[in-house]
Amino acid sequence: MRAIVIREPGDPEVLEWTDVPDPAPKPGEVLIEVAASAVNRADVMQRKGFYPPPEGAPPYPGLEVSGRIAEVGLGVTDWRAGDEVCALLSGGGYAERVAVPASQVLPVPRGVGLVEAAGLPEVACTVWSNVFMLGGLSAGERLLVHGGGSGIGTLAIQAAKARGAHVTCTVGSAEKAERCLELGADVVVNYREDDFVESGPFDVILDLIGAKYLARNVEALATGGRLMVIGLQGGARAELDLGRLLTKRALVHATSLRARPAEEKAEIVAAVRAHLWPLLEAGDVRPVIDREVPMADAAHAHTLLERSGHVGKILLTV
Amino acid sequence: MRAIVIREPGDPEVLEWTDVPDPAPKPGEVLIEVAASAVNRADVMQRKGFYPPPEGAPPYPGLEVSGRIAEVGLGVTDWRAGDEVCALLSGGGYAERVAVPASQVLPVPRGVGLVEAAGLPEVACTVWSNVFMLGGLSAGERLLVHGGGSGIGTLAIQAAKARGAHVTCTVGSAEKAERCLELGADVVVNYREDDFVESGPFDVILDLIGAKYLARNVEALATGGRLMVIGLQGGARAELDLGRLLTKRALVHATSLRARPAEEKAEIVAAVRAHLWPLLEAGDVRPVIDREVPMADAAHAHTLLERSGHVGKILLTV
Repeated sequence: MRAIVIREPGDPEVLEWTDVPDPAPKPGEVLIEVAASAVNRADVMQRKGFYPPPEGAPPYPGLEVSGRIAEVGLGVTDWRAGDEVCALLSGGGYAERVAVPASQVLPVPRGVGLVEAAGLPEVACTVWSNVFMLGGLSAGERLLVHGGGSGIGTLAIQAAKARGAHVTCTVGSAEKAERCLELGADVVVNYREDDFVESGPFDVILDLIGAKYLARNVEALATGGRLMVIGLQGGARAELDLGRLLTKRALVHATSLRARPAEEKAEIVAAVRAHLWPLLEAGDVRPVIDREVPMADAAHAHTLLERSGHVGKILLTV
Repeated sequence: MRAIVIREPGDPEVLEWTDVPDPAPKPGEVLIEVAASAVNRADVMQRKGFYPPPEGAPPYPGLEVSGRIAEVGLGVTDWRAGDEVCALLSGGGYAERVAVPASQVLPVPRGVGLVEAAGLPEVACTVWSNVFMLGGLSAGERLLVHGGGSGIGTLAIQAAKARGAHVTCTVGSAEKAERCLELGADVVVNYREDDFVESGPFDVILDLIGAKYLARNVEALATGGRLMVIGLQGGARAELDLGRLLTKRALVHATSLRARPAEEKAEIVAAVRAHLWPLLEAGDVRPVIDREVPMADAAHAHTLLERSGHVGKILLTV
C-alpha cells in the first residue's frame, strides 16, 4: 500500500506519499480500507519530530480515518468486512489501509457521508472525554472553548449547546466569529480585540494554549470550575496562583488522548457512541469540514493547518 | 455565655475568654452546649486577620465542636435536646454555645468520648471530601499525605489504610515518624532528610504546603494522579509545568471546606456519616488527640499549634 512517510523531521515538504508494507489485523483488530483521514495539530508536531508515536503504533501520521472494513482479526465479532466505519487511531491514518483495535471503531453515523466521517473520531473523543466525562459539564453550566473555529471548537460548541450549556468561544477573526455564532455559540470573543476573562466566569474551560493563557483561564473560572488543558500551543510553564484556585475550589486538569491505554480509549469510544452519535444522527451536531485535500498532497494540508485560516476539519482523501 | 473574642489581629494573646451575647437556633439549626472545640490552622489565620469568617458565621474562631444539643430550631426533626453530637461549623466553636445547621451535625461515634469527638468533624470532612469524594482514592491506589502528624494527617493515614490504599506520609521528626507508622502508614519520609518524590509515584497527594511543594508534587504524581491542595503554608504562587501534567494526564485541585455553601457541607457530612463513621465505630480509625487545653487558655493552644510539635488534635475544653 501507500502511506505518508515522514522522511525526516521538518517542514511540510518532508511528507512523502510512497509505498510501504501492508498492515495486517492482529487478534482483536480490524483492517480498514481508508476512504479519508484528517489533519490534527498532533500530526504537525509528529512531523516536526516532537511527538513520536506511542509504542506499537504505525510510524505514519494520522489519528483518525473513515473507510470500509477490509478484514477482521481473530476474535472480532461486532464488525464485518464491508462495514462503513470511522476509527480513533494511535497513528497510521495517512495511508491506504490501517489496522486498529475493534474497540476504537465507530459506525459512520446515519446522515453523515463516508468521507466527512473521517473528521469525527479525534474531535468527538477529545471533546466528549474532556468536556463531559472529565470536565463534567452539565446543562445550564457555562463553557468557554478556546479556538472556536478549530475542529475541536466547532464540535464542542455544537455538542455543549445540544446538551443545554451556555457556550462562549474565542476566535481570531470576524469570519470565524460569524461561523461560530452560526454553529450556536452564545458569545464569541475575538481574542485580538477583547479579553475573554470579561465574558466569564466559566464552569468548564477547554484550552489548547497552555502557559500563555493559564493565569487568565484561572481568573475566568467560576467557583468549582474545571480548566481542561489539551494543548500547549502557548507553552508549557507558567505561574499558577494556588490561592485563586483554592478560593474558587477549582481544578486544572491536563490530558491527552493519544497516549491513553487501549482500555481507556475503548471506554471513551463507547461513551461517544452512546451519547454523541445520537446527536449527530439527529442532526443536532454536524461535522464541520473546511475542505478535502488529496492525501498525496498532505504537505499542502499541513501548510493550511499551520496558517490557521480554516474552520473545522481539513480532510485527506485517498 | 462566654466565648473567645479576637480583640484585634495579632499574636495568641489577642484571644480573650469573655462574655458575649447568647446565640439562638434559627429554623433548621440546633443549639449545642459545647463540651469541647479543637484548634485548626484556619483559626490561627483568622486570629491574624487573614481569614475572616464567611457571611452569617459567628465572629469567634472554631470550626468544630462536640457537646449536647440544648435546643432545636423550627423544622428540625432528626435531633433532640440532650443528644450527644459533634458538628462542623463555619466559626464560633470557641464558645460555651453555638448554633449550627442540623445538616452539619453528626452523632458522637460509639466508642469515642464526648470530648475527643470535638477533634473529628473538621478533619473527617476535609479528608473524606478531598481524598475520597474529589480525589477518588480507591483500594490499591497510592496516597501521599503531607504532614502525617497533623490532625488531618493522622486521620487520612488511618482512613486510607482502612479503605485498602497504600499510604506514604511526610513528617518533620523521628517521633512523628514513629507515630505515623503506628497508625498504619506504609512509608514515612522525614522531609528534613529525604525527598518524598523518590517514594512515589502517587495516585493522590493531599497537600497543605502549596507553592513550595507544587513542582515536586507534580513530579511525584502517577499517571492519572490527583494533587489535592488544601493549604498554602508554603505560599500560593509557583510555576506549574503543564507539559508534565499533560504527559501524566493529571490534575491539580485546590479546595477549602469552610467557604462551601451549606448544601455542599450537608452532602459531605452525610457521606462522612455513611462511610467514615462505621470505620470509627469499628475501631479501624481512632481520633488522635495530642492534648486537652482549657478553652480560656486558647492562646496557649494556638502557641502549641504554631510550634508544630503536636501529633493529632489539640482540643479546647469548656
